[in-house]
Amino acid sequence: MSATNTRGQATGPPRQAAWGPPYLLYLGDAPDELAIKTARGLAYWRPQWCLGQWRGPSCQASLDLPDMTAEQARAAGADTMVIGLANPGGVMSPQNVRDVVIALEAGLNVASGLHQRLDAHPAIAQAAARTGRVLFDARHFPDSIPVGTGRPRSGRRLLTVGTDCSVGKMYTTLALERELRRRGVKADFRATGQTGILIAGGGVPIDALVADFISGGAEWLSPAREDGGWDLIEGQGSLFHPSYAGVSLGLLHGAQPDALVLCHEPGRPHMRGLPEFRVPDMKTCLEANLQAARLTQPNVIAVGIALNTSKLAPPAAMHACRAAEEALGLPCQDPVTMGVDRIADQLLTCVAS
Amino acid sequence: MSATNTRGQATGPPRQAAWGPPYLLYLGDAPDELAIKTARGLAYWRPQWCLGQWRGPSCQASLDLPDMTAEQARAAGADTMVIGLANPGGVMSPQNVRDVVIALEAGLNVASGLHQRLDAHPAIAQAAARTGRVLFDARHFPDSIPVGTGRPRSGRRLLTVGTDCSVGKMYTTLALERELRRRGVKADFRATGQTGILIAGGGVPIDALVADFISGGAEWLSPAREDGGWDLIEGQGSLFHPSYAGVSLGLLHGAQPDALVLCHEPGRPHMRGLPEFRVPDMKTCLEANLQAARLTQPNVIAVGIALNTSKLAPPAAMHACRAAEEALGLPCQDPVTMGVDRIADQLLTCVAS
Repeated sequence: MSATNTRGQATGPPRQAAWGPPYLLYLGDAPDELAIKTARGLAYWRPQWCLGQWRGPSCQASLDLPDMTAEQARAAGADTMVIGLANPGGVMSPQNVRDVVIALEAGLNVASGLHQRLDAHPAIAQAAARTGRVLFDARHFPDSIPVGTGRPRSGRRLLTVGTDCSVGKMYTTLALERELRRRGVKADFRATGQTGILIAGGGVPIDALVADFISGGAEWLSPAREDGGWDLIEGQGSLFHPSYAGVSLGLLHGAQPDALVLCHEPGRPHMRGLPEFRVPDMKTCLEANLQAARLTQPNVIAVGIALNTSKLAPPAAMHACRAAEEALGLPCQDPVTMGVDRIADQLLTCVAS
Repeated sequence: MSATNTRGQATGPPRQAAWGPPYLLYLGDAPDELAIKTARGLAYWRPQWCLGQWRGPSCQASLDLPDMTAEQARAAGADTMVIGLANPGGVMSPQNVRDVVIALEAGLNVASGLHQRLDAHPAIAQAAARTGRVLFDARHFPDSIPVGTGRPRSGRRLLTVGTDCSVGKMYTTLALERELRRRGVKADFRATGQTGILIAGGGVPIDALVADFISGGAEWLSPAREDGGWDLIEGQGSLFHPSYAGVSLGLLHGAQPDALVLCHEPGRPHMRGLPEFRVPDMKTCLEANLQAARLTQPNVIAVGIALNTSKLAPPAAMHACRAAEEALGLPCQDPVTMGVDRIADQLLTCVAS
């Protein structure tokens, strides 16, 4: 698969390009806006890659993109159709399957972030074989990875960590990439989840690796780097989530981060999916992450806090950020409403380049 | 597969018996004693299950068991032939493959702890299909497991944790099972590695699970238990091993241990396989494990230290144990040379039953 930002500009470990932008975003018969979360992330963070959208007759969601059929998208230069849907079961409807076959017949590769593999459908597997097109499943990782070694490697790396799952780690990491690039600093988003992988055009679905290879996967994702640029690594889970903390710890050790940014959603009543578990306080969570990170990167520091204040009124959001700054002595911003400029300042000031 | 201790006595999560003791231990053409580590563990910890050994013409190792062919073992009542070999590549030689086919033809099931799956060899897969015999790979886990929940469950659980890999966690856990059973306390070894799984007749190869399911695997392995007995869970890796700490943390969270036993090898120069990494001191390691374990089991305590003193002379071993007792305030024994009676005393005294 392609690990390129725009064709030819490497932003990930070197790999053979087999699919990539420009993209047609497939929205199918999405019942609401939430169902196209993946497509929306792609259109928001990589607008230059997205030529158009393909909506089914009963689709209830839309992006700010031209409507196209697969044939029209191919004629306009699209390389790959991305299934931009996220649904609870992670499976495709019979209509989705028929549409994927149409896209393959039109000459497009097809990429998906769903749980179910594209080639689990015989009609899709046969159409791909017939047309010679590529199927890419962001949740599956075909490459073999060595176990992690913890050995120091060159390059600068930042990792987002969280008090919980789904608190804005991907968004924060991408916002930092945009901010650093705006300043002329080389910086590349390194994706660890399916939506991030589709946005980055590459990455490692870290929670889908075999357990022995978690830290090895993070080392593979952000190899030694000599150009002075930053690898900005998307965090996963939380050291305090009873279901997934092992993934978070392996990622932390493999990432060898110079810098951490802590992500948090104020007011969340409990850990995602687990009403019995309270969200840890930020200070405890950050200290635990720093402590664990020191095993492979003794000089790790925290450079900021990213709050997801989407459920707060603006004055309450400002108050939450100020309170966090005072409690932790670090710049705190909501990346969506306030940007990440002060976190980037802290990063560039405090980590020697 | 069978999760029974002796036929019919459940010692693991309820499963359908498909293979199990009595065993014929296959030693093949083992070049030295190290190569039959798995078989030796089985013969030492479950002598009542082991009817005989099958040695090839150039085998350089032996157990204290009668030599038998597959046909003789079957006639003597053996159910399963266990490939008792451990080799660096984890693969079978052509002679091994031929012998497995002979065993299947003789009516035996076959179990293996090697990396390579038994049915990766077409001759074995075909022979199993032809004879209706079962192939069991201890490193592969066919069942689907839910993600961990961290919810409290009934029963008493002990987990062995280590400063490093391969410091004696399996041996210590099995020694505690033997000691508790000797005292009439219900206690069952819960295996998390391939040798342990063959010894237990069941378990979860925890480091072979998909990363998202580590803690779920530990919960599955030691479900709620109402009979007042102990689940003694075999630890894996170390929170301080840069390659595998994610596995250790997920296992710690999923195990919800009431009690920890810390395992350590004095004098080990560095972490296994990683000359750059020092072994952590025992106090730091134990505190980190207790701290992390409290997420899902706030009342967790440490009840002892198990030292592997195999490289020390007896006076130095005694000195190392006394020093550890003074430093950590816990009973310390080498399970091989001193037993685990004082650790068992501490466990039964300090954890309310």
